[in-house]
Amino acid sequence: MRLSAFYLPLLKETPGDAQIVSHRLMLRAGMLRQQAAGIYAWLPLGHRVLRKIEAIVREEQNRAGAVELLMPTIQPASLWHESGRYDAYGPEMLRITDRHDREMLYGPTNEEMITEIFRGGVRSYKDVGKTLYHIQWKFRDEVRPRFGVMRGREFLMKDAYSFDLDAASSRKSYLKMFTAYLRTYHRMGLRAIPMKADTGPIGGDLSHEFIVLADTGESEVFAHRSLTELAPPPADIDFDSDLEPIFNAWTGQYAATDEMHDAAAFEAIPEADRLSARGIEVGHIFYFGTKYSKAMNLAVDAPDGQRFVEMGSYGIGVSRLMGALIEAYHDEYGCKWPVSVAPFHCGIINLKAGDASTDETCKTLYRTLEDQGIEVLYDDTGDRAGEKFARMDLICLPFAVTVGPRGLKEGKVELKTRATGEKDEIPVDKVAAIVSDRIRSAL
Amino acid sequence: MRLSAFYLPLLKETPGDAQIVSHRLMLRAGMLRQQAAGIYAWLPLGHRVLRKIEAIVREEQNRAGAVELLMPTIQPASLWHESGRYDAYGPEMLRITDRHDREMLYGPTNEEMITEIFRGGVRSYKDVGKTLYHIQWKFRDEVRPRFGVMRGREFLMKDAYSFDLDAASSRKSYLKMFTAYLRTYHRMGLRAIPMKADTGPIGGDLSHEFIVLADTGESEVFAHRSLTELAPPPADIDFDSDLEPIFNAWTGQYAATDEMHDAAAFEAIPEADRLSARGIEVGHIFYFGTKYSKAMNLAVDAPDGQRFVEMGSYGIGVSRLMGALIEAYHDEYGCKWPVSVAPFHCGIINLKAGDASTDETCKTLYRTLEDQGIEVLYDDTGDRAGEKFARMDLICLPFAVTVGPRGLKEGKVELKTRATGEKDEIPVDKVAAIVSDRIRSAL
Repeated sequence: MRLSAFYLPLLKETPGDAQIVSHRLMLRAGMLRQQAAGIYAWLPLGHRVLRKIEAIVREEQNRAGAVELLMPTIQPASLWHESGRYDAYGPEMLRITDRHDREMLYGPTNEEMITEIFRGGVRSYKDVGKTLYHIQWKFRDEVRPRFGVMRGREFLMKDAYSFDLDAASSRKSYLKMFTAYLRTYHRMGLRAIPMKADTGPIGGDLSHEFIVLADTGESEVFAHRSLTELAPPPADIDFDSDLEPIFNAWTGQYAATDEMHDAAAFEAIPEADRLSARGIEVGHIFYFGTKYSKAMNLAVDAPDGQRFVEMGSYGIGVSRLMGALIEAYHDEYGCKWPVSVAPFHCGIINLKAGDASTDETCKTLYRTLEDQGIEVLYDDTGDRAGEKFARMDLICLPFAVTVGPRGLKEGKVELKTRATGEKDEIPVDKVAAIVSDRIRSAL
Repeated sequence: MRLSAFYLPLLKETPGDAQIVSHRLMLRAGMLRQQAAGIYAWLPLGHRVLRKIEAIVREEQNRAGAVELLMPTIQPASLWHESGRYDAYGPEMLRITDRHDREMLYGPTNEEMITEIFRGGVRSYKDVGKTLYHIQWKFRDEVRPRFGVMRGREFLMKDAYSFDLDAASSRKSYLKMFTAYLRTYHRMGLRAIPMKADTGPIGGDLSHEFIVLADTGESEVFAHRSLTELAPPPADIDFDSDLEPIFNAWTGQYAATDEMHDAAAFEAIPEADRLSARGIEVGHIFYFGTKYSKAMNLAVDAPDGQRFVEMGSYGIGVSRLMGALIEAYHDEYGCKWPVSVAPFHCGIINLKAGDASTDETCKTLYRTLEDQGIEVLYDDTGDRAGEKFARMDLICLPFAVTVGPRGLKEGKVELKTRATGEKDEIPVDKVAAIVSDRIRSAL
């Protein structure tokens, strides 16, 4: 992408009401623009990151065997009357009356609708054993939206729902999602620790929040330090194999948010291994048994008679993850994008647009990298060098190549690696191969 | 995808209120499920087609130089008060009051919001000359939603907006979109004819609807027959070149919907060349000059003083296109998907699941095709052969391979080509190469 053809409106000053770094950086670097409290437009730079996060979430859902569909944002209130949640949900539900005075709502979540959909399509026990998911915008009318995309009102969520014949199969579905979640965060460079969450009247041990450690996190968390060093499940994990060992490894040590904190159990950990920090919730998985299938009569014929279907739900806040990523990866200069979710992989700065040699070198480098599938933002504008550097620093791509007439005389360009801050003088005929290698090895 | 792991709820009977074939087929073949009047869930099979249509739209937008962003579905009413359209829009606008009693709405279109966004990011005439687009769900509270996704209330739309310094540049932006639209429909196997549309008080010739001919179309259209034979712009078209010849070729002959019909001009065409038919609108592009930039004060500093930005808007109904595709491509058996948007490229029917030879052959074929990037739906269920055939016929994939024990004894499988209805006996070791070739040549 040539910068002259892109739309990248940077802010010189940080809006005063942006309290946390991810919100500030997303506004300043032209990724986000507020349209109303907690409602944002994703500008082209931010949109690219959002789509990459979404693509990783999707790939890992598919790999775990979940099947994608798409439910609408607007739901009829009747579904929620059926489950009994319409009155219980409170003012966070955005209630709408259509032109025919029918009660509708903007879906804050989809347990009811997916139950209705599945109920309409299955009859026999042979039809269950599926996990369906969608990635769709949700709305929760938060009383005080804040922290940018971390607690917005309109937000993008991946929510999956499993349907199984019995609790044992449901546990297997739960473990698949548990495993997929570990891989999903890992691919974005995030270490998310699963922490036991409240199961309410359902009971059991099958409810976990996935928490990313970050100083700006909204909740206090407590964990055994070893959990920060566990290896994630490998890319070739067989989701039909026994996943209990993975589950046990990740849940065998103490880990809890303040809501579920057991001070005594935590104190029992050797002091050097106690980790007390702040965290951001980036996912929540929950086995709720027959709660909705009973309320909404989702039953199948089984050899031993009719059975209510066992269900679980599995959410990832896709737009929220973008905030969490920045909270976890930034320094005083700005974002430090992992390569897998960076808006572009590499920037090219033409220090002297209009100079035949820098123009030609930049153009060749741009084409060579793009032909290799490397995503490049080429600053081909006529702006001053200082402005170009400031801009490239603010958007913080993993790599940036600077092409200037002085360096070119010696056949060299400068390669800056964002993660380390290193700047190297590189022969101009080698730089494409080096950038390409580094990006591939980071992906 | 193995069918046993997919979610494909077929209907035995067609719901009575589905009046047109696309609606009927989408419901019957497990692509769509109604949640409320004009509001649908896209089941996995339908969702796959929707995403393919969306991907083609996106690719051609990007190729034409448009830049993608994403605006939220919910908008503050204040934006529409600014443009003066809030009161004018009528009951099709879904109006919402949030918990703090603020007036909001579910966006039916985005002229106001994109103008606000662009206003916030540009100052100089050097910043204009861009086209921004998004692909997002919209809501129009139709008084009588009908015809399935053809006239739904919640629908997916690609809307692009161009920003230029003067009318001449705006015309160039318009021609880029005009050209991109021709290519977009062509890639889905659709021939859409641009027809002059009403420009209202703006005047000029820059408003076109793109119409696909189909017997079930909602409007009557009149055109010179030669327009059905024009070659679409090639894949390597240079969008920065002079596009006037393309525009002239496609607009040089008579073509109009009934609203704009000029009977005398039509009668002047030799009778054999007069085409009178029904059509479905699948896109609308519109140059509206400074209508919104003046109302909302989007001006830039230009060498000759401040100038209001010239704008145009360019819409494609992405979800509607799926209905139009089925209306244009079906026969008495069901859909006839062009390969580029088919939910899967090829089906495999195992006539005797559990038989070692058919199981092994199917599995090998499935893997071989998937490894080549061919999307396969493998019916690995234990259902009766008749049920499998009926199902595969209903979902109508471009190719279907049937593997049975009798054929295998002679080393053969059956390949059915949906477009022609041909059934060929093919040596089992050749079928993957043949299917793969045919799909590649069709893409």
